[in-house]
Order: sequence, then C-alpha cells, then structure tokens
Amino acid sequence: MMLPNPTLNLSGDRFTVRYRIAAAEGARQIAEAICLEQTVEFPADLVPAGDIGQQIVGRIESLEPVAPGVSEAVISYAVETTGFELTQFLNVLFGNTSIKPGIRVARFDLPESLLNRFRGPRFGVQGLRAHLNVSDRPLLCTALKPLGLSAADLADLAYRLALGGIDIIKDDHGLADQSFAPFAERVQRCAEAVERAGRETGRRAIYMPHIAGPVDTVVERARLAREAGAGGLLVSPGLVGFDTMRRLAADDSIALPIMSHPALLGSFVTSPANGISHFALFGQIARLAGADATVYPNWGGRFSFSQEECRSIAEGAAVPMGHIRPIFPTPGGGMSLGRVPEMLRFYGRDVILLIGGGLFQAGPDLVANCRSFLATVSGR
Amino acid sequence: MMLPNPTLNLSGDRFTVRYRIAAAEGARQIAEAICLEQTVEFPADLVPAGDIGQQIVGRIESLEPVAPGVSEAVISYAVETTGFELTQFLNVLFGNTSIKPGIRVARFDLPESLLNRFRGPRFGVQGLRAHLNVSDRPLLCTALKPLGLSAADLADLAYRLALGGIDIIKDDHGLADQSFAPFAERVQRCAEAVERAGRETGRRAIYMPHIAGPVDTVVERARLAREAGAGGLLVSPGLVGFDTMRRLAADDSIALPIMSHPALLGSFVTSPANGISHFALFGQIARLAGADATVYPNWGGRFSFSQEECRSIAEGAAVPMGHIRPIFPTPGGGMSLGRVPEMLRFYGRDVILLIGGGLFQAGPDLVANCRSFLATVSGR
Repeated sequence: MMLPNPTLNLSGDRFTVRYRIAAAEGARQIAEAICLEQTVEFPADLVPAGDIGQQIVGRIESLEPVAPGVSEAVISYAVETTGFELTQFLNVLFGNTSIKPGIRVARFDLPESLLNRFRGPRFGVQGLRAHLNVSDRPLLCTALKPLGLSAADLADLAYRLALGGIDIIKDDHGLADQSFAPFAERVQRCAEAVERAGRETGRRAIYMPHIAGPVDTVVERARLAREAGAGGLLVSPGLVGFDTMRRLAADDSIALPIMSHPALLGSFVTSPANGISHFALFGQIARLAGADATVYPNWGGRFSFSQEECRSIAEGAAVPMGHIRPIFPTPGGGMSLGRVPEMLRFYGRDVILLIGGGLFQAGPDLVANCRSFLATVSGR
Repeated sequence: MMLPNPTLNLSGDRFTVRYRIAAAEGARQIAEAICLEQTVEFPADLVPAGDIGQQIVGRIESLEPVAPGVSEAVISYAVETTGFELTQFLNVLFGNTSIKPGIRVARFDLPESLLNRFRGPRFGVQGLRAHLNVSDRPLLCTALKPLGLSAADLADLAYRLALGGIDIIKDDHGLADQSFAPFAERVQRCAEAVERAGRETGRRAIYMPHIAGPVDTVVERARLAREAGAGGLLVSPGLVGFDTMRRLAADDSIALPIMSHPALLGSFVTSPANGISHFALFGQIARLAGADATVYPNWGGRFSFSQEECRSIAEGAAVPMGHIRPIFPTPGGGMSLGRVPEMLRFYGRDVILLIGGGLFQAGPDLVANCRSFLATVSGR
C-alpha cells in the first residue's frame, strides 16, 4: 500500500553517533540497517520517499575500516526524532540496535539545539569543588558498609571517616531501605555525624545517601536527604533509570551534587564488540543525565576494566559538550592506599579517589588510615 | 579495626539465583566473590562473623560444572537484603556483578515472602484474553509506523489495521512525543480510530500507546491514555526503568494491560557469557515488573536470537512464580505472514504474534493483509 508522504518542516539540525561495527564484510548493509532500525523500523522499499526517507531515516555520514574486521560508521539523525527527551534520545542512540550483536556505540556529538534541552550536571568539577571548598587537589571518597550494620553503626563510621578527612562519604550502593538500617533513620544519623565531624575539623565533608527505591519514593527520599543535611546524592541509573537521575539533578528544590553509580550497567560494556563504550556510557551519557561524578571500577582492582578504558572514561567526563559541564571521574572498585600515587599520576588533579574496604584494611585505626589517605593526596 | 557484629533477627527466608560462570578454573573463588560483591562489598576477612557473615553475605548452595569451562552456581540471599523493593532486588541479583565479564544470571527463584511484595502482571494471559474477548487463539499484534507520519495518518492506519482484525495495535517504540505526532493528539486520534473500527466490526481491538518520556510525565501520559480510551500501554523498561513499569502496572487508576518492549535491553543478552539470560530478563523480570506481554525478536528475522533462546523466553513467561501470573510471549522483529504457521506450531496458542512492516509488504491492501493474518491464526 502507499503510505502518506508528509512534509515535516524539520530544522535540519542533526546529531551524530559513531558506531563500531564488527563484521568481516557487509559493514555498509549493517550501517544501513541501523539507519532504519533506529528510526522508522520499516522495510526500506516502503519508506515514503520525501521527508521521512530523506530526513527521518538515519543517514550514513561516513563509513571507514578502523581495524581488521571492524568499521566505524558515523550516522546522523534529525534532532526532532528524539522529541528532545532523554529516554527517546537513548532510544534513537541504541534502542533496538542494542539487540544486534557486533554493534557498539563509541561516542556521540550533539548540536547546541539538542544540548540546550538538557541541563546536565548542576555542579560539575568546579561546582563540586566549590561545594566542598577544595580547589587544588583530588577529592577523597569512601563508602559506608558493610550491609547489615545499623543506622547508628553506619553513622559512627561516617563520623570517623569525616574526622579523618574524607571529603565525600557515600552510602554503599547496596544500602536502600532495609530493615536493619532504614533510609530515613540512616540519612538523619549519617548526615548529622558527618556535619558534627566537620564542626570539629573545620573542614567540610559531605554525606551522599543512595537514592533508589520505588519510582514514586525517589524524589521524596532525595528531599528528605536534603532536609536531613545530606550534601549530595548517590544515584544508580541502571536501577532507577537515567531519566530519574536527570530529574533529580534538575530539581531546584533538591539542588545537590549527584554521583552516578554503575550498578547493573555492566552489561553495556563487558563485551567489547557490543553495547556502549566506556567513554559514552560513563562519560557522555552520565553527564547528559546530570551526574557531577561518575563512579567506575579502576583497572587492577576487583573488576576488569583496562587502563585504556579507564582513560576513556576520564576523557568522556571532560570532552567538550557545549554548556554541559565536565564532571569528576571517580575510580574505585577494590582500590587501596598503596594505589593512590599511581592514580594521582594517571588521572591528575580532577579526580575523586574512591577507596572503600581498602581504608579498613590499611591499619587498625580507621581515622589514621583516612589521614594517611588525605596526606598522600595532598602531597604532605 | 573491629566492626560491630549486630544480631539482625532475619526471617531465614532466602531467594536463590543461578549464575553461569565461564571459567576454566577458579569457579569457586568467582562464586565466593559474587557472594560478597552482591551484598557486603567488603573484604572477606573483615566481614563481621555473626549475622552479617552468616546471613547477609550470599551463600553458595551448590556449584556444578555444566559444560566444558562453564559452572553453575546457585547462590542464596536473605530476602531482607532486597528491602522488598524491585530496584534493590535487581541490585542484589546482578548490580555490581554485571560489571564482571563471564558471569550470567540464568534464573532466580523467590520464596512466597518475597513474591508477595510484588503484584506482578495485573492481567496475565487469562486477563488479557478476557480484556480482548478472545479465548481460543493466539492474539494478533502490529505496530504503528513509520516515525514521521502525523497523528492523523497514524490513526488512519490504526483504523484500517483494526478493521482488518488485528487485536492489539501498538505504537512503534520509536513514537514518543515528537512534534510530527505529539503524544496527546496521537493517543486521542488512534484510540478513537481503533474504537470506531471495533464498532464496525463488532470485534474488540485495543490501541497501546508507547509510554516513555521524562519520569515525571510517565504516569500522566498513562492516565491520559486511559482517559482517551487506549486499551493498554507499551512500556520500554530499558528506557524508563523496570520500576516505572511496575508502578504503572500497580496503579488502580490506570489498570491497563502492559506490553514490555526490549529497547535498550539488548546488551544484557547479546554476549552469551555475560548479562542476564533471555529466560530471566524477558520472562521472569518482565513478569515481576508487571508486564502482561513481553516483546522480543523471534528467530530468523532482523535479529539474531536463536530458536532455543526464544523457547526459553516462552518458558520464562510461564514458569511457576507463586501468584505472579504467566504472560504472553510476543515474538516479532521482522516477521512476515509466511512465518505464521511455523510460529503457531512452535509457540502454541498462548502467544501474541507481532508483525509490523511485514503486514505492509504482504500485498497492496492493508485491510486484506490483516484479514489474511487473522484467517491463518484462526485456522480458517
């Protein structure tokens, strides 16, 4: 049957996505399939020839071999296909194509007309530095754990960690609203403990509770955290959705820095030929969705990211994206005090160093371990 | 330092997860690492020896080789670790371990005390049959596309598809709230068109709009859909989050059947050694999160799922899960009328057959193509 062939009056603005295509041959057909799959999802010979075929269907801007059996396709899409919403942007970026093995999103580039629809990180590197009053060194972060401790016990740990000089004391991402440390009580106690330590040291430290839970409670929990004196929020977009993180970041009544956690996002990156690159996922998308810091496992810890993958995350956290601020790479995942000098050399100054269990293993006195961490980072 | 060693008074109820571990050796150490990673995320030698070590840390219930270089570990967790929330359940299931290559969630089994906290599908197979008044044959589904058509054009298509006998006319998952077919106008026109066709044919057909968009608008869009006369909702948990789907399913003021779409979920399944199995992701998790039908690409279409993977989704859609209802497998992704007899033999009666572009390709008269589809499925 003949379909209508509407005139769409589009702006002509397009965004581009670089896809890595692993295929010994037929890369062009695969790229052409992406152009259809991500937009009209319709047989090529039935697509109306006018604006839908010319403007809505993705367009191959370039296609080059980049390694044996791997090509890189740059495909552009009309900005209007996204409806200027984050969920639909992610859908055009990789929705159905995520189901096709051998295709990986490497990076994307958005024109101002699309970037302008996203607020991005409220704080970013400079804002979070100002929030913490630390202008000249990497930031120190640790996590409250293990799961199973009471709210009072976690608050006692938080107090000692802040006393020792840790800048950001976040919930472990496994803390939600469990009976042994209910969210409201935990946040109240931990925020108070960190503030009390700050009064004693004269140094600002902040507590970041993990904001997860049923979608209806997320904003409420974030507001409760703000009222209790929490200085930031830990958000796991793999659990609550990227748009929930964006919404929390954009809320002027919350207005707290956000640290993004990679829980349940691993499957996007574990297979090198599939998914989304570390650069785009933990860098670009985290920023577009409002994170001020992006947690990921550093190389040589409990996880398997390579040095090069970690470098690419730091690059994605800083690559120019119009008004979207650069954010802090936050490597963790089995780091120890002994790894700090190497991480400082690798990441430079604009990094948050996340050490969890390693801070407890470094010696019997937790406060002294924290002071040692701070001294190393401060170069004293 | 010595950590507190609290008494937790847990119920003793545990849920189990089967993980496939791809490793030539060291499967036990990997399984032990999962037990820690998914709970306390703490060095084993520092975990308090009491209830935290005994109850909170995951427990290896069995570990068996199942293929050369592959072991299956059954690990149990205290139900209380989930806080009885879907987001935290998914976190314990696979949160940080998703970042470790070579580990795949194969399936999970939940005790009544955990299942009871989830409503699951409001309709399920029997409820959706009653909703559509079709008791004895597979259901027919198609998608409104291509992206770029106006709301009026899409409604005209919807009318003809319903006139031809399609039971469920859903938005293509790429339809969001774009300028060329704004959500509110589209839903109003398409719901009206499908209802009008139903009055003419005397046969009930339903329209399912795609509910995505900013997290704050999702419930509002679903209510608007209900008020406009939509008969169900298409939801993409990869875009909006699984808990958003659960929340929509649980809302008594919406009370519409939900079809789950796999957009952006592909990376969980594209690499066979990583991620989450088709059975667990498109079957068990979709049900726990309230879907009444689960869309996935059938084998032999534009995507690469195998026959065996498709079978496992149908099994996951029906496996006993306490009060959680069985749901409809909804294979699509490049199907044609010619594939229908084979799909009927393979899936039996309790299936929704989704044919999109193929309905347009089958011949010049769209209504006649639909009638042919219905005749094949009805065995007439």
